[in-house]
Amino acid sequence: MLEDILKQVQNGTLSIDEARTKLATYEDLGFAKVDHHRKKRQGFPEIVYGEGKTPEQIISIIQSLRNHNNNVLVTRISKEKAEKVILVCPEFQYHEAARILLWKKEIPKNGHGYINVICAGTSDLNVAEEAAITAEALGCEVHRIYDVGVAGIHRLFDHYQEIQQATVSVVVAGMEGALPSVIGGLVSHPVIAVPTSIGYGANFQGLSALLTMLNSCASGISVVNIDNGFGGAYNAALIYQLAQKGAKDA
Amino acid sequence: MLEDILKQVQNGTLSIDEARTKLATYEDLGFAKVDHHRKKRQGFPEIVYGEGKTPEQIISIIQSLRNHNNNVLVTRISKEKAEKVILVCPEFQYHEAARILLWKKEIPKNGHGYINVICAGTSDLNVAEEAAITAEALGCEVHRIYDVGVAGIHRLFDHYQEIQQATVSVVVAGMEGALPSVIGGLVSHPVIAVPTSIGYGANFQGLSALLTMLNSCASGISVVNIDNGFGGAYNAALIYQLAQKGAKDA
Amino acid sequence: MLEDILKQVQNGTLSIDEARTKLATYEDLGFAKVDHHRKKRQGFPEIVYGEGKTPEQIISIIQSLRNHNNNVLVTRISKEKAEKVILVCPEFQYHEAARILLWKKEIPKNGHGYINVICAGTSDLNVAEEAAITAEALGCEVHRIYDVGVAGIHRLFDHYQEIQQATVSVVVAGMEGALPSVIGGLVSHPVIAVPTSIGYGANFQGLSALLTMLNSCASGISVVNIDNGFGGAYNAALIYQLAQKGAKDA
Amino acid sequence: MLEDILKQVQNGTLSIDEARTKLATYEDLGFAKVDHHRKKRQGFPEIVYGEGKTPEQIISIIQSLRNHNNNVLVTRISKEKAEKVILVCPEFQYHEAARILLWKKEIPKNGHGYINVICAGTSDLNVAEEAAITAEALGCEVHRIYDVGVAGIHRLFDHYQEIQQATVSVVVAGMEGALPSVIGGLVSHPVIAVPTSIGYGANFQGLSALLTMLNSCASGISVVNIDNGFGGAYNAALIYQLAQKGAKDA
Amino acid sequence: MLEDILKQVQNGTLSIDEARTKLATYEDLGFAKVDHHRKKRQGFPEIVYGEGKTPEQIISIIQSLRNHNNNVLVTRISKEKAEKVILVCPEFQYHEAARILLWKKEIPKNGHGYINVICAGTSDLNVAEEAAITAEALGCEVHRIYDVGVAGIHRLFDHYQEIQQATVSVVVAGMEGALPSVIGGLVSHPVIAVPTSIGYGANFQGLSALLTMLNSCASGISVVNIDNGFGGAYNAALIYQLAQKGAKDA
Amino acid sequence: MLEDILKQVQNGTLSIDEARTKLATYEDLGFAKVDHHRKKRQGFPEIVYGEGKTPEQIISIIQSLRNHNNNVLVTRISKEKAEKVILVCPEFQYHEAARILLWKKEIPKNGHGYINVICAGTSDLNVAEEAAITAEALGCEVHRIYDVGVAGIHRLFDHYQEIQQATVSVVVAGMEGALPSVIGGLVSHPVIAVPTSIGYGANFQGLSALLTMLNSCASGISVVNIDNGFGGAYNAALIYQLAQKGAKDA
Amino acid sequence: MLEDILKQVQNGTLSIDEARTKLATYEDLGFAKVDHHRKKRQGFPEIVYGEGKTPEQIISIIQSLRNHNNNVLVTRISKEKAEKVILVCPEFQYHEAARILLWKKEIPKNGHGYINVICAGTSDLNVAEEAAITAEALGCEVHRIYDVGVAGIHRLFDHYQEIQQATVSVVVAGMEGALPSVIGGLVSHPVIAVPTSIGYGANFQGLSALLTMLNSCASGISVVNIDNGFGGAYNAALIYQLAQKGAKDA
Amino acid sequence: MLEDILKQVQNGTLSIDEARTKLATYEDLGFAKVDHHRKKRQGFPEIVYGEGKTPEQIISIIQSLRNHNNNVLVTRISKEKAEKVILVCPEFQYHEAARILLWKKEIPKNGHGYINVICAGTSDLNVAEEAAITAEALGCEVHRIYDVGVAGIHRLFDHYQEIQQATVSVVVAGMEGALPSVIGGLVSHPVIAVPTSIGYGANFQGLSALLTMLNSCASGISVVNIDNGFGGAYNAALIYQLAQKGAKDA
Repeated sequence: MLEDILKQVQNGTLSIDEARTKLATYEDLGFAKVDHHRKKRQGFPEIVYGEGKTPEQIISIIQSLRNHNNNVLVTRISKEKAEKVILVCPEFQYHEAARILLWKKEIPKNGHGYINVICAGTSDLNVAEEAAITAEALGCEVHRIYDVGVAGIHRLFDHYQEIQQATVSVVVAGMEGALPSVIGGLVSHPVIAVPTSIGYGANFQGLSALLTMLNSCASGISVVNIDNGFGGAYNAALIYQLAQKGAKDA
Repeated sequence: MLEDILKQVQNGTLSIDEARTKLATYEDLGFAKVDHHRKKRQGFPEIVYGEGKTPEQIISIIQSLRNHNNNVLVTRISKEKAEKVILVCPEFQYHEAARILLWKKEIPKNGHGYINVICAGTSDLNVAEEAAITAEALGCEVHRIYDVGVAGIHRLFDHYQEIQQATVSVVVAGMEGALPSVIGGLVSHPVIAVPTSIGYGANFQGLSALLTMLNSCASGISVVNIDNGFGGAYNAALIYQLAQKGAKDA
Repeated sequence: MLEDILKQVQNGTLSIDEARTKLATYEDLGFAKVDHHRKKRQGFPEIVYGEGKTPEQIISIIQSLRNHNNNVLVTRISKEKAEKVILVCPEFQYHEAARILLWKKEIPKNGHGYINVICAGTSDLNVAEEAAITAEALGCEVHRIYDVGVAGIHRLFDHYQEIQQATVSVVVAGMEGALPSVIGGLVSHPVIAVPTSIGYGANFQGLSALLTMLNSCASGISVVNIDNGFGGAYNAALIYQLAQKGAKDA
Repeated sequence: MLEDILKQVQNGTLSIDEARTKLATYEDLGFAKVDHHRKKRQGFPEIVYGEGKTPEQIISIIQSLRNHNNNVLVTRISKEKAEKVILVCPEFQYHEAARILLWKKEIPKNGHGYINVICAGTSDLNVAEEAAITAEALGCEVHRIYDVGVAGIHRLFDHYQEIQQATVSVVVAGMEGALPSVIGGLVSHPVIAVPTSIGYGANFQGLSALLTMLNSCASGISVVNIDNGFGGAYNAALIYQLAQKGAKDA
Repeated sequence: MLEDILKQVQNGTLSIDEARTKLATYEDLGFAKVDHHRKKRQGFPEIVYGEGKTPEQIISIIQSLRNHNNNVLVTRISKEKAEKVILVCPEFQYHEAARILLWKKEIPKNGHGYINVICAGTSDLNVAEEAAITAEALGCEVHRIYDVGVAGIHRLFDHYQEIQQATVSVVVAGMEGALPSVIGGLVSHPVIAVPTSIGYGANFQGLSALLTMLNSCASGISVVNIDNGFGGAYNAALIYQLAQKGAKDA
Repeated sequence: MLEDILKQVQNGTLSIDEARTKLATYEDLGFAKVDHHRKKRQGFPEIVYGEGKTPEQIISIIQSLRNHNNNVLVTRISKEKAEKVILVCPEFQYHEAARILLWKKEIPKNGHGYINVICAGTSDLNVAEEAAITAEALGCEVHRIYDVGVAGIHRLFDHYQEIQQATVSVVVAGMEGALPSVIGGLVSHPVIAVPTSIGYGANFQGLSALLTMLNSCASGISVVNIDNGFGGAYNAALIYQLAQKGAKDA
Repeated sequence: MLEDILKQVQNGTLSIDEARTKLATYEDLGFAKVDHHRKKRQGFPEIVYGEGKTPEQIISIIQSLRNHNNNVLVTRISKEKAEKVILVCPEFQYHEAARILLWKKEIPKNGHGYINVICAGTSDLNVAEEAAITAEALGCEVHRIYDVGVAGIHRLFDHYQEIQQATVSVVVAGMEGALPSVIGGLVSHPVIAVPTSIGYGANFQGLSALLTMLNSCASGISVVNIDNGFGGAYNAALIYQLAQKGAKDA
Repeated sequence: MLEDILKQVQNGTLSIDEARTKLATYEDLGFAKVDHHRKKRQGFPEIVYGEGKTPEQIISIIQSLRNHNNNVLVTRISKEKAEKVILVCPEFQYHEAARILLWKKEIPKNGHGYINVICAGTSDLNVAEEAAITAEALGCEVHRIYDVGVAGIHRLFDHYQEIQQATVSVVVAGMEGALPSVIGGLVSHPVIAVPTSIGYGANFQGLSALLTMLNSCASGISVVNIDNGFGGAYNAALIYQLAQKGAKDA
């Protein structure tokens, strides 16, 4: 692209002023193009982090996004805020457990594989749903496998084959956070571990689960921030997409 | 006992001076008697903590103990120190992995049940052996089930029945420390969890495993200090003994 | 059990489909049976953790449990929630200090021994009551010994014999959490230490008491999570039950 | 498989004893088969963690592994130990910076794509090399991009295209650990962040870099333990392999 | 000054009582004079920390300050309090995002240079505005460069020249807090880093950003307390003023 | 004093230059006088902190101090350093357990009362001896009551009267650090608590004992730094001295 | 006392039953007597910790205490609770800043000396007042020296003599907590340091001030828990009392 | 610069290939120019961090640097390494206390002002010397004011005027780290605070001093990493240089 611009300057089809603008916007527009490319190539919409934004701010952002995307995702948005947004943007749908506001025109089903979203206990469900809805919005097929914590390991084994055959697993757990280690020992695909702040006492707001996951002796586990269901799903979706296409056009 | 002394004072068989001595030593000798009772009732020897003591100090202590006990246990003693002690006390035997120096005249086999000493990885073996040797010295039958960490959960299931049928389990684990949670979900007997300092990075010298165990969502798990194999075994032996006898003479 | 099923397949009394179901449910039902066995053998009901559940959820769970159990225990349930549940399930009784909702058809008194529930100060009373009510619901006789913290050690000595003669002690303490160490030095039975979050300043929400207990120089002490009165009682009840029966049928 | 065994029992080609053995080994052999499958399917060798093992232990393990694998990888092994091992197993090669001992009969080059191993400073080089050698041993093509930390961001931009076009990036950084955030904002593939313990003062042995990476505001970043170059590479290799094959046979 | 007073005592123009008062107030008034000098020399008003003060207290302080200053600055004051103060002191103006209440009679524009106030994300805007308004109240020209976090590094480069040519930069960032490191590598002027408590999970109320900044491998960065936009600006203004005048009258 | 100087200036017996010097040295010499007064009034020598100083530095400091004091105290000095110092200053005596080097010409016995130095276990002995030797060097009578930790509370009660009748107690404890709480509940004099770094695992280098002592529910306990036996004794000696004299000349 | 009882048993003036009661109550009544003695000797009332107690509980406790004491002190009691108590016990007076409820019949003025209560900033005033009111209730004369933090060290020097001449100082400081170090370097009497939780950001709820005080390089400083104004005053009052009487009757 | 290149392309004095190279190297060479400019403008040499580099590596780096600089600075280099380097580069001089190896051809004395390097105790001297030598190597005049910690505040006041009249102060302190707060309250110029790891116990390797400095209630203080004397000096030198020149050419 730089070469094209220089050639046009040399052969006079581009003035210096125009070139400077182009080159100046090169970095800017260039990155914007990458974003655009990414959307085309990956079907990944821009994501809006709802916390700390007013309903008005969210409305103006999502109206802009809706013009250039097939789906728009707002995370960490309370029910109250979501209802105000829906008054103006009635095509959006609110997922209460996941605290996600979502609009999707058309999400092309990808042909192969699926992502596991596995959670240890019912109290980790909100974070798990944030992951599951996010992954679906990013075009992934999702299998939800909930309430299979290690304290009743037999519940996990009932889903043994389903767990093993996925492309990638997002494993959500609070309290002692041991589930990703067990899953990691059972499967040969990547595991994204999401610690949650669920627990009490020496849980220290998720520190316990976070440390457990970072210290896992199972290989193939990587970790995102506490309660970051979105981040877990985003990582999984990147991997899922790579697996869909193979490395040829990666 | 107080009543006996008072009666003897009243009927003149005990002078006030003698009574005062007795009552003064009451607290002292009284507690010493309890110690004596404990040994008779439980077969538990006095335990010597070897760290920070010179070989000479250890020799004098164990020579004194050997006169009133059937077995003498020294924990956290290095090979170098142990060899110096054995020169003087050749009846003692050193357990290198456990760092324990032990002499036993006769340890009566208790009739029923056994204690599991389970460890997650081969690097937790030292702490596990400290627990196992301690429990054996305290008169327990011990089943060692080693290297069955959650990252390869199938290794654990091969020992399923053996694990379940014990009276009490001591579960030793470092790194993420998830093993006690899994065991706790499989058994209906008490589990004593021993975190180890094995690991690196965000393990923080055993903090990771400690927090995991304290936050276990499985019931029936209690925790001792990091690397405290002795403490885990001591707790298990107290429980084992209660189970041997039933509550009648508890 | 596996052998039985295989024999029935061999002699034709069980079809392959039926066997697969049985074996499939083996793991599942099998564990459920263990649960059932456990209830029969130990009289331990399923326990419902009330925090984060709606009154409706709790009602549906306890109605299901009541059909297969002689008693049902809900922990960490607020007065408001409990009152809503009692409107539908009037046979339940709410213990406000313990935040426990309990129904018991019949709890067979076990013949021997008792559990101490000891607490340091009046402000640890809630956690102590959670422990005491839980232990009673699990079929244990409980002796409550409250407000005997180490800052007035004489109060403790007034209960010296009662403390010593128990089968197992649950010791609840906040602030500096020193009470389990003192108890541990006085008794020859297992001590379950429960740190509480009571205190201020450098207490750091119970961290102070937790570390104290983990570092106790008295043997025979194990620790559960901060404020986990239920966990302390559950461990004690497991031990109590072992002591009732001896190891024969453990 | 279960069905096959049951059928054989029904039609008498398998005795009950044989079936029990098969089913008993099912879990065991079954998992072993998975391991075997994994090796065939993924070309991933078993990995030996060298720390805390004697040269003799390492020799016996790698001799066993060499019979069933095309390559054998020993991580965290000191130069001294490695030299003792090589005396017995001269076909092994030691990578000093990475502290890895490696033998490879034949590592099939995968056709497409590559893994970036990027590190911030020269002092992070050891961890980066552990990652790079591991990834190569697992059959990946690796591009090393070293010493491109954020304090001289222009060095990073010189490698802009190379960084962007990889299949997956392993980003290694100590001190403030900011590099993965910058990389994560530049690429549309998964980033595995590896914090190192390099630094001093308020670095707190890698805690600083670890927290930075967990809190990254860039999406698509997941984190492994401090100094865990091996873990970063293993995760990347799992993803790389998925990208090679697509989801068809995942 | 001491010499003057002693001379006046010697030549009788000052009584001993007067001298003692003067010398007694020397320390007090002397320091007050320094304060006064500082105001004249630097144009820096006294600053009132509004948190924990009642509207009445604030009113009486700022009325006193207004008599001796050309501008008065109240930081960390809520909208509610500010409105009550403005009822009595209507010449004051409230800056809501910065939570600052400000009155300025006349702030002389200094001739040269400007201070960058740079922030990483829109959620760091409150702290950035506290810094910007404070710096302006202290007589500095301020360039606001907002929402240029490292996760989209191209946004930063669009402001490259503006960032480089400032006299000093205040860089505000939460979450991973990596922005000051990147800025520090791009400029040759001092950078004051302000960590914010913005983030969640392993952010630990700003600890993550704080550690990142302290461990920056870029030279020329110093750090103030979490969320301390005022402190960042005050440091920058001291430096800005030195740069205005040169060292002659420093 | 200021008034005196001013008067002398007024009546001409002091030149302005002399007065300036006097007033200039007032702060300096004034503080030096306080130091001098302190020594005369309290008999407290200057104390030399030996850590990080060379034998030569220590020799030159103590030779200077010896000229103006009746005793000289060097703390935290290793045996090796002490031996080198004694070669030059043979009148000094080394206390190995306390790591203190001491010379005393004459320490006047104070008439009344004594200080308890109490320690929990034999491994806290070094810190306790640092406290005891320091207190003796500062002119206090010291009662050593060692190895009376709470895990064997009866040992403590044997010293009940001796403990109660002291003027002030220095209580040294590591591991769980519970001893000061028990002492604090038994006595009506001030207790200075000294946490030690003795212990392992979740002791975290004395943090456990420190938090225990700060959170003590017994009144009348204050705390010094971990392993700071000197500091504990210094505080106790200040109190002891006040008690010797009463408030008349305090 | 024990001897007296034994003599009475011997000479028949005391039956065995009576003796046992006496000896049984010896420990109990004995300690109560000590409490009684303490009140007589020290004039120290029992103190009620108001937090977590209902107004009704407080009323019944203070009515009981009022019968045996000349003054009654309730700490940490909110205005709302205090007003309810005063309705029933109108002789009590509430100190709002100190959150103390106090009744005093007559507090004998002790003849000599005074306690400094010094605080760094106006926001530390609540904790300082808790200390000051407590010390006054315990019979001490108190000098309040407020708002003399180290950031304006001249304010401190205006009170130099007053600070130096006290018997003991309680120094209250939040934020960086440096004031006790400065005071400790100026005085030759004991300093009790009270860290407060005042501050923000890296203050971590008082941890910053606490660590500062524990690490003070000034001798003669000991520390109590964060925000523990009561504890600081109680320690100071014990010392003050010792200074009043001298060691003769200590 | 971009415009110049485009113009040369347009008028044919630059081929497209040459332009691409120039623009490609623009970022790279551009930054290098900035570095070069910086050296010319500021006289700041490149600095080599010696830790973790071999003598050979250091030699090759400093030989390269010496060709383009007037002075070369190596920090954190041990005496052993330095001596090996000096064998090859005898023009270098080693500063042992500062652990700095320095060569300077000519350091132009700047006309005005000076930097204070102030340290609290003699044990902070190494870090202070690292700061002082660094600042001198960067062309600053340095006043060393050592051993003036807050525990003897009068020592500080003897240097009152010298401290106040500097352009900027670097204040180095360990243990409680209170000195910067006191200095910050006395001066009207910027203060760079350097916490050191000097201390013991609850110092936690410098955390105590770090938190103190971050929480200082004095304005005008910013903080660098623990023991980072170099960083403190570098910041001060940037400010010093701004003050030398004024903002005209900043």
